[in-house]
Amino acid sequence: MTREKAPRRPRAETPKGFRDYFGAEVTERKAMLDAIAEVYHLHGFEALETSAVETVEALGKFLPDVDRPNEGVFAWQEDEKDWLALRYDLTAPLARVAAQYRNDLASPYRRYAMGPVWRNEKPGPGRFRQFYQCDADTVGAPSVAADAEICAMLANALERVGIPRGDYVVKVNNRKVLNGVMEVAGVLDPSDPSKFENERGIVLRAIDKIDRLGDAGVRLLLGEGRKDDSGDFTKGAGLSAEQAEVVMGFVSAKRATGAATVARLRELVGNSVLGAEGVNELETIATLLDAQGFGADRIELDPGVVRGLGYYTGPVFEAELTFEILDEKGNKRQFGSVSGGGRYDDLVKRFTGQAVPATGVSIGVDRLLAALRAKGRMGAEAAGPVVVTVMDRDRMSDYFAMAADLRNAGIRAEVYLGNPKQFGNQLKYADKRQSPIAVIQGSDEAARGVVVLKDLILGAKIAENATLEEWKDRPAQREVARGDLVDTVRQMLAEG
Amino acid sequence: MTREKAPRRPRAETPKGFRDYFGAEVTERKAMLDAIAEVYHLHGFEALETSAVETVEALGKFLPDVDRPNEGVFAWQEDEKDWLALRYDLTAPLARVAAQYRNDLASPYRRYAMGPVWRNEKPGPGRFRQFYQCDADTVGAPSVAADAEICAMLANALERVGIPRGDYVVKVNNRKVLNGVMEVAGVLDPSDPSKFENERGIVLRAIDKIDRLGDAGVRLLLGEGRKDDSGDFTKGAGLSAEQAEVVMGFVSAKRATGAATVARLRELVGNSVLGAEGVNELETIATLLDAQGFGADRIELDPGVVRGLGYYTGPVFEAELTFEILDEKGNKRQFGSVSGGGRYDDLVKRFTGQAVPATGVSIGVDRLLAALRAKGRMGAEAAGPVVVTVMDRDRMSDYFAMAADLRNAGIRAEVYLGNPKQFGNQLKYADKRQSPIAVIQGSDEAARGVVVLKDLILGAKIAENATLEEWKDRPAQREVARGDLVDTVRQMLAEG
Repeated sequence: MTREKAPRRPRAETPKGFRDYFGAEVTERKAMLDAIAEVYHLHGFEALETSAVETVEALGKFLPDVDRPNEGVFAWQEDEKDWLALRYDLTAPLARVAAQYRNDLASPYRRYAMGPVWRNEKPGPGRFRQFYQCDADTVGAPSVAADAEICAMLANALERVGIPRGDYVVKVNNRKVLNGVMEVAGVLDPSDPSKFENERGIVLRAIDKIDRLGDAGVRLLLGEGRKDDSGDFTKGAGLSAEQAEVVMGFVSAKRATGAATVARLRELVGNSVLGAEGVNELETIATLLDAQGFGADRIELDPGVVRGLGYYTGPVFEAELTFEILDEKGNKRQFGSVSGGGRYDDLVKRFTGQAVPATGVSIGVDRLLAALRAKGRMGAEAAGPVVVTVMDRDRMSDYFAMAADLRNAGIRAEVYLGNPKQFGNQLKYADKRQSPIAVIQGSDEAARGVVVLKDLILGAKIAENATLEEWKDRPAQREVARGDLVDTVRQMLAEG
Repeated sequence: MTREKAPRRPRAETPKGFRDYFGAEVTERKAMLDAIAEVYHLHGFEALETSAVETVEALGKFLPDVDRPNEGVFAWQEDEKDWLALRYDLTAPLARVAAQYRNDLASPYRRYAMGPVWRNEKPGPGRFRQFYQCDADTVGAPSVAADAEICAMLANALERVGIPRGDYVVKVNNRKVLNGVMEVAGVLDPSDPSKFENERGIVLRAIDKIDRLGDAGVRLLLGEGRKDDSGDFTKGAGLSAEQAEVVMGFVSAKRATGAATVARLRELVGNSVLGAEGVNELETIATLLDAQGFGADRIELDPGVVRGLGYYTGPVFEAELTFEILDEKGNKRQFGSVSGGGRYDDLVKRFTGQAVPATGVSIGVDRLLAALRAKGRMGAEAAGPVVVTVMDRDRMSDYFAMAADLRNAGIRAEVYLGNPKQFGNQLKYADKRQSPIAVIQGSDEAARGVVVLKDLILGAKIAENATLEEWKDRPAQREVARGDLVDTVRQMLAEG
């Protein structure tokens, strides 16, 4: 083990794959999460904040058979004892909580949670090792009414944060229907579900990629396999053309109305008991949502949506934004998925041995924020503070009093606290702070009981896009009585 | 290394020293932090959210000379590379950010930050390994006007969250004055500050304990040392009685007015240049605060406050709540400190080699929350949702529509989603949810177009403290037309 002998300065660097958020990046995300929390709360969901740290044992599924179980998670060992790890999502901690507090919590337990999660993955462009999730789940409700509620709440939440109706759609499907179709295709044997498990996993992941690979690509993966552009070969599920045809029939089973889609699915699942159960569940969900006024313009049945995660056991859903944006290459494309979820009935069972039905949804916070910025709902100029400049450092009290007066009127304000010697630096500072107004009072102005207000919005607008001509009637600065400071600033801000 | 052969169920346990927060515990803390953030923002401070993970190198001071640098922090090694760790406070990440982004950030940089921090300490009663901090700091402002601003903002923040004026006091002192007094006492040699460094550390920690140990206990620690109740001996600073007298004179130098305290301190620091500088700084701070109307009822000079942390270099401050609470033994005692801070001019220098002046404050989120609960400002009955019960599971759509109607009127509402067979379970559930009202509609009521509203607030009040007599005019349940559901519920909630 090498050690550095001479002390050197530490590097000032965010660890690789992590990010720092500044100013509006923090407050805009917070505003969005607050709005979503409000919707969840209104629906009877309770806040839950678990510790960021879990035992690796409780987290479970990332535990490979190695001494150091840090694949996928950030983990460390307590002195010769338990391995601890940072949570990788908000569902695993919920399962732990639902088991641990099962005698105290109301059942069904509706909870929402928002906060950072951590993934020990290779950092890459757009791939981060800490990011926010925002989840709502119902634990202990066997009926698909709980799934319908989650779908409706998701639509409400999207509208509440500023995605207009028509710009999103919540798509609903059911894993049981897919399994029924698999039964018909001969890759699921109800008397021995362990048979063809691997093949079904491949089918699931293939369907989940249809947006990217298209029909033909998915068919390759259902059959022998597919070579991608880089030449890498992905082994397929080995289905015959007839079997693949059955599966592809399911993927494209969406019809113009929910009722028509249900009818088509009923044909496809044939005599499969599980499949019929899934179709009935979808029908119930559609009926419940219709009754609440959630028509196909907001929530629709779409057999093309399967979600990649293995643990879903019934209804699955996904919220997609339908408006177009320009991708990195300048091509128009739909914004796509910002949220997904479904029913997972086995996660709590890991702890207690008893099956506990659960369903929930997770909103991709960063993607939804990006969508709101694309819609112009966020990312507006951040309002900087009014900056009270310092002309005479013996009169700091006066400058502080001006800032206090402004704040008492609810106006964001601060006194310049750098070295006041170079006045130019103070104005540069005010610019960098996106300050709308600089307040100036030298000894001459003080003697006359006035202050000068410099309009920095004007300067910024001219620099940005307007000509001076357009603004010529607006004074670049005005002198007002000290007693009129607050009123004049308020008026200037209203004009700005 | 032992391994368990047979798979067993994982334990559903919060890791030792960590906590889960439920419902109002989450939302009340959030409301408090939101209010504080509003005050910070109004003062021109910008939000900053750094990653929870830092390199151990950047965190610095917890790095002992051992292979595994996890003393005090939770740390792990990236594959043969950097050690990473969870942040232990919000100041170390700020120093890293101030160095890393020094060319982009406005200077001075005012920032606030709130979020969890982690300490790898032995868990114990009331000692947790993850807790919230809420900080505001100004980096790059050499003038003590920045310290005065922080003190004033701290007072504003306390009042904003609900601590009335008179129930708190912000105490201000200056390390330079203490060092001046040390110079007079002969334990600081300005020509060689490294001399007596250990002794001065002991003096600092001794003074910091005066509330607990009293004058006599502190004098023992200034001299040879002190044996505590358990028999453990703490070595003292080894000061003579005369030297200790000088130090104790400083601790008790507080006078009735700030001006009188300043005058007393000027006597005590004698010819010490550093001491005189400290007294002048205190005077400037007092003058600035007076001018803004922060009198001694809110902010006062108190030489008894030194703060334990080694890195402070100038002004230090502490917010104390002055009202009394009952401690665990039923004795009255003052609530005490909820916040502290001070000037630290050397933290950024670690990275850049250039001194960057900085000052800031940290609010103890859990203690302030406890104070607000003690003052009855929080912890009121959490408002549970109106629960729409399920009498007839074929009419879930009707029940969902009722809940949706209530929510559209802004009333928190949910449909019971457990097994509806036992109606008693539904009412027990509503009770556990602290629901104010249960909505009931069986087939009979449905046929007549009415709903029954059961008043659960009434039941709770009777169970809690009132006699039935007091409530006899209030009906336990009422039947209203389905069309009057929302209006009646709203009216009942207003009465409740």
